[in-house]
Amino acid sequence: MTARIGESMICCGLMSGTSRDGIDVAFVEITGRFPDNKIRLIHGETLPYPGRLRGMLMTGYQALSAVDVATLDFWIGRCFGLAVLQALRRAGLRRKDIDLIGSHGQTLLHLPEGMKQGREIVRSTLQVGNGAVIAQITGITTVSDFRSADIAVGGEGAPLVPIYDYVVLRSPSRSRVALNIGGIANLTAIPRGAPLKAIFSFDTGPGNCLIDTAVGVFTGGKETYDKNGVRAARGAVNTRAFEMILSDPYFARKPPKSTDPEKFAGSAPMAFVIEAMLREALADPRDERMRSKLRAADRKRLSNHLANSVTRTATEAVAESITRAIEKFVMPTMRPDEIIVTGGGSKNRFLMDCLRQSIMRSLPRAVVETGEAFGINSDAKEACAFAYLAYLCLKGIPANVISQNAGLKGAVLGAIYRAPKWRAT
Amino acid sequence: MTARIGESMICCGLMSGTSRDGIDVAFVEITGRFPDNKIRLIHGETLPYPGRLRGMLMTGYQALSAVDVATLDFWIGRCFGLAVLQALRRAGLRRKDIDLIGSHGQTLLHLPEGMKQGREIVRSTLQVGNGAVIAQITGITTVSDFRSADIAVGGEGAPLVPIYDYVVLRSPSRSRVALNIGGIANLTAIPRGAPLKAIFSFDTGPGNCLIDTAVGVFTGGKETYDKNGVRAARGAVNTRAFEMILSDPYFARKPPKSTDPEKFAGSAPMAFVIEAMLREALADPRDERMRSKLRAADRKRLSNHLANSVTRTATEAVAESITRAIEKFVMPTMRPDEIIVTGGGSKNRFLMDCLRQSIMRSLPRAVVETGEAFGINSDAKEACAFAYLAYLCLKGIPANVISQNAGLKGAVLGAIYRAPKWRAT
Repeated sequence: MTARIGESMICCGLMSGTSRDGIDVAFVEITGRFPDNKIRLIHGETLPYPGRLRGMLMTGYQALSAVDVATLDFWIGRCFGLAVLQALRRAGLRRKDIDLIGSHGQTLLHLPEGMKQGREIVRSTLQVGNGAVIAQITGITTVSDFRSADIAVGGEGAPLVPIYDYVVLRSPSRSRVALNIGGIANLTAIPRGAPLKAIFSFDTGPGNCLIDTAVGVFTGGKETYDKNGVRAARGAVNTRAFEMILSDPYFARKPPKSTDPEKFAGSAPMAFVIEAMLREALADPRDERMRSKLRAADRKRLSNHLANSVTRTATEAVAESITRAIEKFVMPTMRPDEIIVTGGGSKNRFLMDCLRQSIMRSLPRAVVETGEAFGINSDAKEACAFAYLAYLCLKGIPANVISQNAGLKGAVLGAIYRAPKWRAT
Repeated sequence: MTARIGESMICCGLMSGTSRDGIDVAFVEITGRFPDNKIRLIHGETLPYPGRLRGMLMTGYQALSAVDVATLDFWIGRCFGLAVLQALRRAGLRRKDIDLIGSHGQTLLHLPEGMKQGREIVRSTLQVGNGAVIAQITGITTVSDFRSADIAVGGEGAPLVPIYDYVVLRSPSRSRVALNIGGIANLTAIPRGAPLKAIFSFDTGPGNCLIDTAVGVFTGGKETYDKNGVRAARGAVNTRAFEMILSDPYFARKPPKSTDPEKFAGSAPMAFVIEAMLREALADPRDERMRSKLRAADRKRLSNHLANSVTRTATEAVAESITRAIEKFVMPTMRPDEIIVTGGGSKNRFLMDCLRQSIMRSLPRAVVETGEAFGINSDAKEACAFAYLAYLCLKGIPANVISQNAGLKGAVLGAIYRAPKWRAT
């Protein structure tokens, strides 16, 4: 076991992102004092959700009832708790080695724009995976529900990771962009030598959700993502569809702003793209001829060709939307030296290449690299961030820096569910 | 302002019961050490829910979507927070006088029996009124979500008030039953001189929910409850319906057990009763004649007569179910000297009389009195209990005594949402 020196704490972070494919678990050692903490990853892994649970999450949140919400809250809580126990065994750690768990939970709904109720607008967010269940299963004090307090002070409830980005990535000599490409892509801009109150962050728009939807729809659900960007590399960009995606008004909106996959995957823009590309394909004289007497092999080739091209288009659009976000909303304030990419998108080589190419346009000398080049585990990053956010909650440190930097109140984020035997650390 | 001596804390309790008619707010001063705390009510009042919100809650939880849950969580949180501010003004207190808020929230669902999900049974509970919202509006650290931890250890998630009953009502010389008649009626049995681990508690079954439904249905929604029991006093018991209610298998089930109004009001047993009484009324030859040439005045009289009789039947059934619960499940362990009645039901004089009469059958010398006779504010009791439960959470004291007494694990109840400026008290 890791020796604990001085102010050291071992925290566990739990995250399940918008792609809902499983639970990221990370154990980190946190030493030092805020904001000069050192955060070291001890162990990180991703555990799958039970198939039935994943199915329920995939049905779409619009269709979920109050009973489903209550059931998912406890069911996901149990899965998260069991994931911690499993990861502990694999890491060779014991329960009592862990001081604290920070669990993001699974977002069911995020409605910062609010719902009209008579004369009132009620803004809300809903993460499930009850912290009491996690605390009871693991015997470890658990912090959850990180987003509500920021919504309550008028913030977007997202992103919450910037304070972690700042602590881990700030540099006295290099201006950095921490870019996380999960279902949604978000970035934190950290000017060189800047104080916490000078950083800013926002969701650039869709990340993997757009690409995953393209792959899923055009392979009839047989594939769920574009491994290494292989499909995209073989496809061709459909310019009209590409522009159609990028014409979404979200991209023009000034930060602070946040979004969710519901908006981009499966819904309006993506549906337009798919429709447009299908029309184009069918209008193609070669395809016209094929329509009349298609052999199975041709049919497959056509569908493969379409799948690759929609995937390529989605991938290029994601890269372009990120680059435009940097050009429009980051560069007026700071010229990035380094762009540090984490999340599932950082594994997509083709996406990384697209990004490098589009970034080069206005930042020819900027380094675009995955977190690993900076000593960060790209997969575990968000889980590590929530371990750290739990630590900040326990220390009583307001962590909603993006809202604070926009003039809103600081808020201690999270709800503390005490373990059976509470250790005040 | 109240002077604070020694270990004193001023806590606020917030409760909205199963009748969903408003928010009970109580400010209490807690002194001494557990379990010898003294709890003094400083101020208590009930504030109504906004009409539109109440309407949404009344639509029935089955019909609520995930979006409704998220919206209610924040909307009710806001109402609770504003209720605290309003009550503070009326009590002549300031925010900074209050150390802590304990908010029960509004129960949307309570499913301790669980829902089947494949091979798993997922037990859950769902209270809304987000603690982060309350903490941000009031600037006071807020504890909420008290029931989840007890569900997580295998408990019923209810009742949670017994630890409060014990601290406030235990006596070295008198065996007591603390009976709270809200929408649901529950009791805590506190044998004289007994330790905490000897008390037991359970929901006896329906309380006001049965009576309110009777009144509501038979006045076409014009009245919502039987004020002072006036209707019941004028009605006649329908014996068949009375027995039909009491034949519900819940009453025979051994404690620990808990239930909710959904089960008794509006659903099966009540519907049977209403149907049976209507049939009987129509079969009555007098009513038969009236059917053919009813004048408006007669019609009104008939309907009034029916309303009164259903109300009377419901009221007698509630009293009888409580008495039988005491006979069957309390008396084998302890012979109560005093039955201390709180909650809305304690205001219903007719119900209190019914209860006294049925209790007399097996406990001729027992005192059946409202909380006021014992220095307890009947209206504010549950809110006071949640103020105290918040205190216990902060102190790290497991408060799920009923589950512990049934051999389950002790759990610290509640999620702590820290105020902007955290005071570690």
